[in-house]
Amino acid sequence: MARYQTDVALRWSDMDSFGHVNNNQFMVLLEEARVGMMFTVAAEAGLTGFREGVVVARHEVDFLLPVVVPAEVRVELWVERIGNSSFSFAYELMANDKLALRAKSVMVPYDVASQRPRRVTPAERAFLEQWTE
Amino acid sequence: MARYQTDVALRWSDMDSFGHVNNNQFMVLLEEARVGMMFTVAAEAGLTGFREGVVVARHEVDFLLPVVVPAEVRVELWVERIGNSSFSFAYELMANDKLALRAKSVMVPYDVASQRPRRVTPAERAFLEQWTE
Amino acid sequence: MARYQTDVALRWSDMDSFGHVNNNQFMVLLEEARVGMMFTVAAEAGLTGFREGVVVARHEVDFLLPVVVPAEVRVELWVERIGNSSFSFAYELMANDKLALRAKSVMVPYDVASQRPRRVTPAERAFLEQWTE
Amino acid sequence: MARYQTDVALRWSDMDSFGHVNNNQFMVLLEEARVGMMFTVAAEAGLTGFREGVVVARHEVDFLLPVVVPAEVRVELWVERIGNSSFSFAYELMANDKLALRAKSVMVPYDVASQRPRRVTPAERAFLEQWTE
Repeated sequence: MARYQTDVALRWSDMDSFGHVNNNQFMVLLEEARVGMMFTVAAEAGLTGFREGVVVARHEVDFLLPVVVPAEVRVELWVERIGNSSFSFAYELMANDKLALRAKSVMVPYDVASQRPRRVTPAERAFLEQWTE
Repeated sequence: MARYQTDVALRWSDMDSFGHVNNNQFMVLLEEARVGMMFTVAAEAGLTGFREGVVVARHEVDFLLPVVVPAEVRVELWVERIGNSSFSFAYELMANDKLALRAKSVMVPYDVASQRPRRVTPAERAFLEQWTE
Repeated sequence: MARYQTDVALRWSDMDSFGHVNNNQFMVLLEEARVGMMFTVAAEAGLTGFREGVVVARHEVDFLLPVVVPAEVRVELWVERIGNSSFSFAYELMANDKLALRAKSVMVPYDVASQRPRRVTPAERAFLEQWTE
Repeated sequence: MARYQTDVALRWSDMDSFGHVNNNQFMVLLEEARVGMMFTVAAEAGLTGFREGVVVARHEVDFLLPVVVPAEVRVELWVERIGNSSFSFAYELMANDKLALRAKSVMVPYDVASQRPRRVTPAERAFLEQWTE
């Protein structure tokens, strides 16, 4: 019942030729937060299924403020919905403590061997429920 | 009154450690198509304002099929809406002639000198209207 | 006894905030040429061993000219040396027909299952010898 | 008379489809260390000339060990040579405290307005001399 919070280090190369962090590179920063929860934290809790395969089905992103490197970036991530074979993340990205971006993603657990989506397991559901609001 | 169509060359490095084109790298492919129209084609028509500054305000993307390199990728891009100070693109990305992704973006012309959004000019509006359906 | 030549499509995002193609992105362009020969052309000749695993042991790169997007880029690639368990590529990258970069790479075939380097096979040697000067 | 040391955060996307940190992404990590010294630390010392323009003339890199995400990465960077219009960096990159990469770069201060190389200033020379061994 809490947000997952993580600092993400910007890189100089995240900026494009307009001199701002590129919109696509922000998506990479969201991926870092998502992977931190789904791969690293989940694995520490004994859950390796996401790390073995999970697919993004949808992203929605609103870019609110331009960001220039260097800046301190923090991503807050939580689970909005847990279905039978998919779940949804919501994100807020703070740059120097100002809200710079809001996003949502739909995730689908994926069985790499059969190359097919699979159901969310009960243990995965319990793990994800920790990060609902 | 037509779609803008462009082939985009995949790179081996567009794949991530799951062995598929990464979801964020698809966004880079959409950027290539968008920049091709807004920067290169527009400049050939005498319009350099977008190239001087334009910002993404929002993306929505649905990922429909996984893609593995090598594959032939074509992006189709058209203008859905033209407002006073923003406009919207829609995209379809075909990989080996199958629809792999649908997306929409909201774009905002941006004045780099003043660091502020600016209005769509009449010439830009006429240019964009060519690409409405 | 010929160079392998390939056009590589620049992307707008290859530029960094100095407004030039970033030095590291040039390395990605060289990778595209290398992978085109070692993975795609070799596989057409029945050789899939490189695609299953090959590691870069060393790069040397001289950056001769700045490049701005858009530009036509062609990479020429040839094999300089074939050893027992490694081989070397040389590259020239032309941007709008001017020599912009020279590079060399040392490559090591790699057995992913055992996580160890392996020897160049006779069939691989014959394949590589086609691209010596 | 000391090495500049900095931790660099790996990203999941630094891995390629072989499941290791890609050789080109290592170059981005070296860039982060270099930019940290030349742009951020130098600017804190009142020197903004590098941040306004500096070009890579040459890289040499030896890749010694494969790296898998997650890992703790530290880059050590020092100045090997200071000439009239160029200088050289040497690097060692440690992953989980093991030496994974050695590299050298030749850097050229660059005047963006005139699009030409420029000389190293006395203040820049004094700054760089701090980081010689």
